[in-house]
Amino acid sequence: MDQNIATHRRSGGRAGRKALRAAPITSFPTLVRKIPVYQMIPDEAVDLIHNESLNILEDVGCEFRDREAIAIWKGAGADVAGTRVRIDRAFLMQLVSKAPSEFTINARNADRSVQVGGRNTIFVPMYGAPYVRDLDNNRRYASLADLNNFHKLAYMAPALHSSSSIICEPMDVPVPKRHLHITHSALKHSDKPFMGAVTSKERAEDTMKMAGIVFGENYVKDNSVLVAITNCNSPLVWDATMLDAMKVYARHNQPLILAPFALCGASTSASAVGAVAQVNAEALAGVAFTQLVRPGSPQIYGQFMVTVDMKTGAPMGGTPEAAQMMYLMGALARKYRLPWRTSGFHVGSKLNDAQAGYEANMLMHAAILAGANYIWHVAGWLEAGMACGYSKFVTDCEQLVGWYKYAGGLSFDDFKEALAAIREVGPAGHFLGTQHTLDHFESAFFTPSLMDFNSFEQWSAEGAKDHDTRGREKARTMLRDYEEPKLEEGIADGLRDFIALREEQLPDSVN
Amino acid sequence: MDQNIATHRRSGGRAGRKALRAAPITSFPTLVRKIPVYQMIPDEAVDLIHNESLNILEDVGCEFRDREAIAIWKGAGADVAGTRVRIDRAFLMQLVSKAPSEFTINARNADRSVQVGGRNTIFVPMYGAPYVRDLDNNRRYASLADLNNFHKLAYMAPALHSSSSIICEPMDVPVPKRHLHITHSALKHSDKPFMGAVTSKERAEDTMKMAGIVFGENYVKDNSVLVAITNCNSPLVWDATMLDAMKVYARHNQPLILAPFALCGASTSASAVGAVAQVNAEALAGVAFTQLVRPGSPQIYGQFMVTVDMKTGAPMGGTPEAAQMMYLMGALARKYRLPWRTSGFHVGSKLNDAQAGYEANMLMHAAILAGANYIWHVAGWLEAGMACGYSKFVTDCEQLVGWYKYAGGLSFDDFKEALAAIREVGPAGHFLGTQHTLDHFESAFFTPSLMDFNSFEQWSAEGAKDHDTRGREKARTMLRDYEEPKLEEGIADGLRDFIALREEQLPDSVN
Repeated sequence: MDQNIATHRRSGGRAGRKALRAAPITSFPTLVRKIPVYQMIPDEAVDLIHNESLNILEDVGCEFRDREAIAIWKGAGADVAGTRVRIDRAFLMQLVSKAPSEFTINARNADRSVQVGGRNTIFVPMYGAPYVRDLDNNRRYASLADLNNFHKLAYMAPALHSSSSIICEPMDVPVPKRHLHITHSALKHSDKPFMGAVTSKERAEDTMKMAGIVFGENYVKDNSVLVAITNCNSPLVWDATMLDAMKVYARHNQPLILAPFALCGASTSASAVGAVAQVNAEALAGVAFTQLVRPGSPQIYGQFMVTVDMKTGAPMGGTPEAAQMMYLMGALARKYRLPWRTSGFHVGSKLNDAQAGYEANMLMHAAILAGANYIWHVAGWLEAGMACGYSKFVTDCEQLVGWYKYAGGLSFDDFKEALAAIREVGPAGHFLGTQHTLDHFESAFFTPSLMDFNSFEQWSAEGAKDHDTRGREKARTMLRDYEEPKLEEGIADGLRDFIALREEQLPDSVN
Repeated sequence: MDQNIATHRRSGGRAGRKALRAAPITSFPTLVRKIPVYQMIPDEAVDLIHNESLNILEDVGCEFRDREAIAIWKGAGADVAGTRVRIDRAFLMQLVSKAPSEFTINARNADRSVQVGGRNTIFVPMYGAPYVRDLDNNRRYASLADLNNFHKLAYMAPALHSSSSIICEPMDVPVPKRHLHITHSALKHSDKPFMGAVTSKERAEDTMKMAGIVFGENYVKDNSVLVAITNCNSPLVWDATMLDAMKVYARHNQPLILAPFALCGASTSASAVGAVAQVNAEALAGVAFTQLVRPGSPQIYGQFMVTVDMKTGAPMGGTPEAAQMMYLMGALARKYRLPWRTSGFHVGSKLNDAQAGYEANMLMHAAILAGANYIWHVAGWLEAGMACGYSKFVTDCEQLVGWYKYAGGLSFDDFKEALAAIREVGPAGHFLGTQHTLDHFESAFFTPSLMDFNSFEQWSAEGAKDHDTRGREKARTMLRDYEEPKLEEGIADGLRDFIALREEQLPDSVN
């Protein structure tokens, strides 16, 4: 693997790579789940939903609101009327089957490359918050400095497998130029996989050019080095912006997440099963389209589904139905042998408080047991995605270490020794001095440092800090200790030059 | 059922029962899980652990530190040396098989009677906190007034199936008299099932007498009207106090929870699987003993297992291993066809903050999917059980409503109508006006009122309250609205008379 990344790099060499390896961080490889998936409903019920999704695509069809996309569907012989595409079930499944079950996302540091699909799971921080809840617990507009900070924290978090991209919106950068600085920040501050801009064809192309500078222009024509999100507008609309991004990335063999964004009860029916049938149809239509653009291109089937408070219209976070729907989507993804994305720690809470915690682990437990491959929004998410919190970010990152261990399964390796310890200790003894304990005390049980398990007295003596306060303190410490995994000089210069060039070409405002 | 409770009541009559039914609370029946259990390890691995547990009981044996208990074991032909009992596997399993798989706990209001075992699950609030985190978020010693309050809240919480008993310790009542006031408070303020005192033989007998006043003396000789906890002192010791309580309650056919209290890593080996093998042996030894005392008496197999921070010795809360061990214990319980107790929302956090939330739902998700029958400590628990929090209590109670819905499974009942709605709405529409939505918007999705999903602006305008604050406000409101489900006059008088009599007989201090 290291050989691969070395050969496709445009410049740099031994010194640059050595510097990378000196980076003082722990970084976990792709999580390979060793626990079985949980299936909430029987296979026949999964098949029933599947069948109804296919009925929807045959009868109602799906909108593809882009001239080129419609031409592609027509060229493939689909039943097209205006922008409405009705897709025959056999043809749909034939297209879907072309997408690979598993693939690699190559990172600029090959040690951080990850596998997506099958029993593999990766954890990816949040995306798109216009606000931050900052280190002083104030809520304010996000800035580029904040985004840099979150990329630094993502780099340092052992269980995060990606830098995402626009963790928060750099509101201090003009909109037409933002994607340049977002992509640059992700590539500069972390050597983990990242995500591509999708807000226009041009921005997707700029992202590919920047990826080309880092990975080599030829390399990124065929090798996956990023992931890009495209959302279906539920119900049943793939719009021109999303289709533009899909075309750019699929042609480069870069994986897309084909994920309907569904506010269940508003943009779907008020039925968890009904919502899944619809969202599944939408996601499959997206996957099928990518396989017309480039057969065999890697894709990630998925969804963002929250339920809506039907009294106020507000999207909710960690509700039981959101968790239940994950199990259905996971079962469908397995049926299609598609890598599957869901979301983990996404909450409605404004603060990193009890609400956030209850919501977060309600969802993450389901995401893990449902066998998700790309678990997104697992660091920072507050306020239904409106804000990224520093304290929430580091809280989530620590919890992920626990989830990583959880999904790694139970170890029977030292079972014999543990049983011998029981015989050695006998009734009424204690185990602290046994050889087995001495050998295993550091690894046996996950000990989250942000969780306070001290006595009340000790906790009081240390300032009686709530979890949110401890999280903000940890974020400060981490940022102070951050060391940049430096890009090779030629690459760093190349990126800066490209940004300077594009900044001259691009306007400062959208209109 | 109502007929039953009427016939065994000592006095009262039509008016009394009518008053009960007028109580303005919602109360859910026993939760019947409609989702499958999750098994984390294959059956062979469960069998391996089972087998090693039986080896432990044959080779090492278990301590029963009570003369009468030892006589009982000897009388049954067990291998006894001093207080050490080594139990042959065939004999052990023969005894264990005598305990019923499912049974009823009768409540003073028959509508609140619950089923334990099989696919049934009940939720029971916490037990034993010396401190409270009060309505002003101060931590102080618990009082009888606090206990009364928690019994009121437990009564009002729809998804709580029990009043527990000593939710918090009434520290203002002399120790020798406490059990009287605890039992009285549970019976007076709520009509749900309750729990019995276990701190001495005499106190267990007092509890049975008070139950006799409420349910009828003859009735409680054979019918289960309470549950009592007995903890094995890990490793492998059943002590005299616990055995005394076991004998009293088992002879009355009152179910015990046979639950080792294990600080994994200290009182067990530093291995999740090793800890389960040991705790299983301990619990089975307890169940077996109860079947010598009264064959066929209803019992609840179980455990309290937390991992220990090996650096400080502090017990931790919602850790991955605690959840993993639940799946193992659940699988073992199913193997033995025993009703199974575990714990839900027990956390290490001092506050009802993010730590509490992450910990709580980490564990509850596992308890539900592992198929637990008696999920204890699901309201109020803070600080590893040292404190009961008002805000935490009502937070937990609301979350339970969501878990109740979750475990009730996905509804396909309205799937056809939901699919029709998709056809009616079509691409780019919305579902708010469809007939299906109008029919289902109130029931489709759980909407927790304590969780704030409003916009940031709305939330700010309402005082920018964190979850803990909202919880305390809700607790105040609930207590203000509480209406007592009055005992019939004769029964209420009987209880007061009994307490007065016993208070005269009992000293004010232990020594």
